[in-house]
Amino acid sequence: MRILVSNDDGIEAEGIAALAKALSEIAEVTVVAPHKEQSAVGHSITMQNPLRVKKYYKNKEFFGYAVTGTPADCVKMGIRNIMGVLPDLVVSGINHGSNTAINIIYSGTVSAAREAAIMDVPAIAVSVTNHEVTDFSYAGEIAKKICLLVAKKGLKKGTLLNVNVPDVPKEEIKGIQLTHQGKSKWDDIYEKRVDPYGQEYYWLKGDLIETDDELYMDQMATKSNYVSVSPIHFDLTDYETFEEMKSWNIDKELSGK
Amino acid sequence: MRILVSNDDGIEAEGIAALAKALSEIAEVTVVAPHKEQSAVGHSITMQNPLRVKKYYKNKEFFGYAVTGTPADCVKMGIRNIMGVLPDLVVSGINHGSNTAINIIYSGTVSAAREAAIMDVPAIAVSVTNHEVTDFSYAGEIAKKICLLVAKKGLKKGTLLNVNVPDVPKEEIKGIQLTHQGKSKWDDIYEKRVDPYGQEYYWLKGDLIETDDELYMDQMATKSNYVSVSPIHFDLTDYETFEEMKSWNIDKELSGK
Repeated sequence: MRILVSNDDGIEAEGIAALAKALSEIAEVTVVAPHKEQSAVGHSITMQNPLRVKKYYKNKEFFGYAVTGTPADCVKMGIRNIMGVLPDLVVSGINHGSNTAINIIYSGTVSAAREAAIMDVPAIAVSVTNHEVTDFSYAGEIAKKICLLVAKKGLKKGTLLNVNVPDVPKEEIKGIQLTHQGKSKWDDIYEKRVDPYGQEYYWLKGDLIETDDELYMDQMATKSNYVSVSPIHFDLTDYETFEEMKSWNIDKELSGK
Repeated sequence: MRILVSNDDGIEAEGIAALAKALSEIAEVTVVAPHKEQSAVGHSITMQNPLRVKKYYKNKEFFGYAVTGTPADCVKMGIRNIMGVLPDLVVSGINHGSNTAINIIYSGTVSAAREAAIMDVPAIAVSVTNHEVTDFSYAGEIAKKICLLVAKKGLKKGTLLNVNVPDVPKEEIKGIQLTHQGKSKWDDIYEKRVDPYGQEYYWLKGDLIETDDELYMDQMATKSNYVSVSPIHFDLTDYETFEEMKSWNIDKELSGK
């Protein structure tokens, strides 16, 4: 089995080292990751600038390829130019911090996996629910098991799995929960500050307003110490509204035809 | 009616000027847009750096606010700090180039509208299917009519409309088509070049492989000279796969519980 590993925290992050280590027990692993942190870049791709690719060594051993771009760029570059063949699986992570509910929209980790799904490669995004993770070993173990399960069961083209692992001791994990993307959203504010030159600037901050209380919602599952596994896709059509809008007669209303 | 206008081509683009002009005929318009081009940034938001906001003047008249961030940042900032109230509508565009099929995923224009939908504000993304547009007047007219229609009919929370206008003379437009996000994808390649210092770099390029032939698919509709209107949302759950995966027994398979 050939697995392409990427992330959004950058090639030097601990999470990707733990992921590559765990998956190398079951597959030939190629690491292609951003040369620096790319959190919250969403599904950004680099078109206005060229990309550069450098070999990256960790403790003097070759670890992978660092790309001067986004997580989605890394997956495209990794598949098209570095591997040259479609891998059996793309796994993104292990992200430092959860990617549940609305955060999926902003997530570079999920977008790397989604880019693979767009290329018809089965993909998994793995995150741990804490920015200051000390031990990635359980998340690595879960990632490995999910890869084996996906290899066995297959995944529909265009679908990826978004996995979130609670950052608690392994013995406190209650189980694995199949979930939906939760509905919780951020209540953002911009904090205004003034620089030493008298000019204003703003920092984004906010709180996640947790509106879900069902265990089958990703955010609630992880909060309840379950590993959350959500199948997600990139078909954004709102089919329900599509059906409703048929009665709008938009052609008549807008063009008079 | 109060409308927040943003885009991803930047506040100096012709498309946003045409949009603001058209919508000012029916609403009080506030323009908040990136200070420079932000195409293909997807749903990126700025968290690692602060944002700055500057007033932008066009022909010596105040036009709007330029933000040193992404389209999604502009919508958050525009609603939270500049308008201070929820607008009745957020309209993003008029984009120079189409946002159909897989391009929706990468689009800053669509992400601006999506950020509004996340904030429960009805939103519309408007694009013209050509990077070198000479006349935005028909697209502006369509944007205005769709705003009035959405104001009349309402839009479900979390849903936005993605509108694509063919870049052909108005009399060649065949009508308005309600559409799905198409399935066409890019066949990407990276073109390798060598800089004057002997270092390699790569440019992303590719062709859109058109796989849809039904008029109710956005890309096909615009190609057939119809204005395409797609309702899209940000619930990424693949419900079909969710149901299928119930038989995977992931809890038993992965945790042995």
